[in-house]
Amino acid sequence: MMEGVKGRRVLVAVDVSEQSMHALKWAVDNLQLSSADTLILCHAKRLPAAYEGLGGPGFLLTPEVSLSLEKYVDRIAEDVMNKAREICSGSQVKVEEEIVKGDARESLCEAVQKFEADFLVIGSHGYGTIKRSFLGSVSDYCAHHAKCPVLIVKKPHHH
Amino acid sequence: MMEGVKGRRVLVAVDVSEQSMHALKWAVDNLQLSSADTLILCHAKRLPAAYEGLGGPGFLLTPEVSLSLEKYVDRIAEDVMNKAREICSGSQVKVEEEIVKGDARESLCEAVQKFEADFLVIGSHGYGTIKRSFLGSVSDYCAHHAKCPVLIVKKPHHH
Repeated sequence: MMEGVKGRRVLVAVDVSEQSMHALKWAVDNLQLSSADTLILCHAKRLPAAYEGLGGPGFLLTPEVSLSLEKYVDRIAEDVMNKAREICSGSQVKVEEEIVKGDARESLCEAVQKFEADFLVIGSHGYGTIKRSFLGSVSDYCAHHAKCPVLIVKKPHHH
Repeated sequence: MMEGVKGRRVLVAVDVSEQSMHALKWAVDNLQLSSADTLILCHAKRLPAAYEGLGGPGFLLTPEVSLSLEKYVDRIAEDVMNKAREICSGSQVKVEEEIVKGDARESLCEAVQKFEADFLVIGSHGYGTIKRSFLGSVSDYCAHHAKCPVLIVKKPHHH
């Protein structure tokens, strides 16, 4: 069926957003991924914005708080991967998982190179709210900086 | 081979740039398009920037000049379509062609709706020169405004 076709390596950014899961589902449904292809689920775990920088110079975080925050982001990562795995379960594609730490924008671009991805699939948050315009910039950034083609999937408004 | 899979409608923006031809080639090579799928080659023809607005209110263009300009953009459109057709010739995908008039950004987004495209493939010009940053905005605009997922293909620097 896939004769002569080199397996594709598709990296999909997954996070807590509905948009990222929609993008993953879209990729599974539309890219005709087969067992020759590899889907790399990549999640960038990051402390909630309110805690950003707390561990930096000039700040002190008690080990207890620090540990509880780490557990929190770990649990989110686990939830995200579970959901993502479920979406892929109908497909024959090989699935790999990668959890990275830090800013999604840079982490995703780095992961593209590390995994030699043929393309990056990323959800976009459309427009309308501050949150969406903030998160949308991840896809903008990757479209410009990732060293591979980038597929930006918007979740239709009527869903 | 494609049982149960609805044919995909992939719209590819084509213009005089190497980047757009690279994007088209990438799509043909990587999207595993079959005879069930349709590739819509869309070219937005437009007068050279220096002539923009010449036909507008307050300007007069002699019929001769106007005609010669139209022939010029028509010839470009023909060249672009010839090249694009050649790139597709190795694939079994059904090819349709659409030449529209006007700004590429809006024309492409309109064509997405007219042709009910499942996704839009568009080249991007990377960074470094004024020209590239200007042309790059077509892909940015479409990534945000097209009513379908958008695949942005950058031409690698080393080519």
